Amino acid sequence: MSNKPTIQKMPQALRQRIRTGAHSSPTTGFAADYVQANLMILPQSLAAEFLLFCQRNPKPCPLIAVSEPGQYLLDEVGLDLDIRTDVPRYRVWQHGQITAEVTDITDYWRADLVSFLIGCSFSFEQALLAEGLRLRQIDEGVNVPMYKTNIATHPTKRLHGPMVVSMRPFIAADAIRAIQITSRFPSVHGAPVHIGDPSQIGIADLGQPDYGDAVTVHDNEIPVFWACGVTPQSIIEAAQPEFCITHAPGHMLVTDILNSSLAVF
Amino acid sequence: MSNKPTIQKMPQALRQRIRTGAHSSPTTGFAADYVQANLMILPQSLAAEFLLFCQRNPKPCPLIAVSEPGQYLLDEVGLDLDIRTDVPRYRVWQHGQITAEVTDITDYWRADLVSFLIGCSFSFEQALLAEGLRLRQIDEGVNVPMYKTNIATHPTKRLHGPMVVSMRPFIAADAIRAIQITSRFPSVHGAPVHIGDPSQIGIADLGQPDYGDAVTVHDNEIPVFWACGVTPQSIIEAAQPEFCITHAPGHMLVTDILNSSLAVF
Repeated sequence: MSNKPTIQKMPQALRQRIRTGAHSSPTTGFAADYVQANLMILPQSLAAEFLLFCQRNPKPCPLIAVSEPGQYLLDEVGLDLDIRTDVPRYRVWQHGQITAEVTDITDYWRADLVSFLIGCSFSFEQALLAEGLRLRQIDEGVNVPMYKTNIATHPTKRLHGPMVVSMRPFIAADAIRAIQITSRFPSVHGAPVHIGDPSQIGIADLGQPDYGDAVTVHDNEIPVFWACGVTPQSIIEAAQPEFCITHAPGHMLVTDILNSSLAVF
Repeated sequence: MSNKPTIQKMPQALRQRIRTGAHSSPTTGFAADYVQANLMILPQSLAAEFLLFCQRNPKPCPLIAVSEPGQYLLDEVGLDLDIRTDVPRYRVWQHGQITAEVTDITDYWRADLVSFLIGCSFSFEQALLAEGLRLRQIDEGVNVPMYKTNIATHPTKRLHGPMVVSMRPFIAADAIRAIQITSRFPSVHGAPVHIGDPSQIGIADLGQPDYGDAVTVHDNEIPVFWACGVTPQSIIEAAQPEFCITHAPGHMLVTDILNSSLAVF
């Protein structure tokens, strides 16, 4: 019998700690067997169009769940899950600008808000680690580097902009294995969108990511690029809706869905 | 109704033409929906060890079927298939040297000979083409380029040597797709063994293949390398058994097995 606390391996207990304010830090590594989601909360007036945008851009915006307008209890993805309190840190946006960063959005809640839960690379990273691959950003203790690309998303009337990608370097054999493993997880970005030469997708310098931190890329390694769930935040920045709420980077919504249940084969 | 002959789309009819000498040329593109196999016929004295070699090296030597000693009718892979007559061109080897190239090995047949049918990249190429990818060697009308590498096979007592790979260049998105598609076909070499820098696997110059022909590789393309069924011939050259028979390159054994039946998902 161990006396170490194991509570945070379970998503329900972790959400309870988040709700009470006992956990307000990033969720990386917590409840690691369970799906963590990017969050986008939009007024109903833009929700239908954002849903269409996600349908047209499944690689950067793979939908895990979409709420009804005003619905804040999301039992279908987590027992007793309350979207207003169960994310460690939220960003409140007005007209494309961050106007508040909070740990509870109960005071901001509106009856017309629709929540979009978008798959996150933590799920496929868990699968990569489980198969023995190493992730450089974890080894170097930093956030994964993310880059705006010259890959256009498929636009809707008001939503358009470049795809954001995350990058992980691997030797060739591991790059092949990573492509195989992540192909099994289409609902959390799936297979990479690019491998090799960064300039082919409009990245001038791997050492200068647009989000996250730079990591070491050795001469014998191939950079592998996945569509990134930061893409919708970048799109929303450009679209400047009057109001929306997202999670703060790294502070994800932890669901009760097992990562392994997302594997399609 | 077309009057064009369609007979060669069916493996039974193609084998009949081969057996009668009406077809003694390469089989590429014929009966393209069906598995074509590399052939290695060895005396029983070396067969058990070669079987072990294949077990230890499934990527270059994926076994489709292995006969009993002396068995020349292989009904399990093709209706009325006779291994002595149904390959368009054979190579007879003595002590590691080719001593004859013939279209019928009935006169060479021995009661101790064991036939190994080894998967061939034609099967996965068919899957790549079916999904819309282009193959450079087909577009350029040449044989696929093959190279000896510095990747050692897993040896047995008498059988050892470098892995031979085939190379197909793709832009990054198609390389990712090709990795996905060929991963579905482990019994015909499966996923690539390398992508990118040829020097990492001991290939000094893509323009100088050890077998087959060089193809154009554009600046924006990634060379993708698959384990190749020529590997066992290279191993046998080194092991110099007193006697063996192989197919001549490109002149494959055409089976009744559908390529599509080899997909594992």
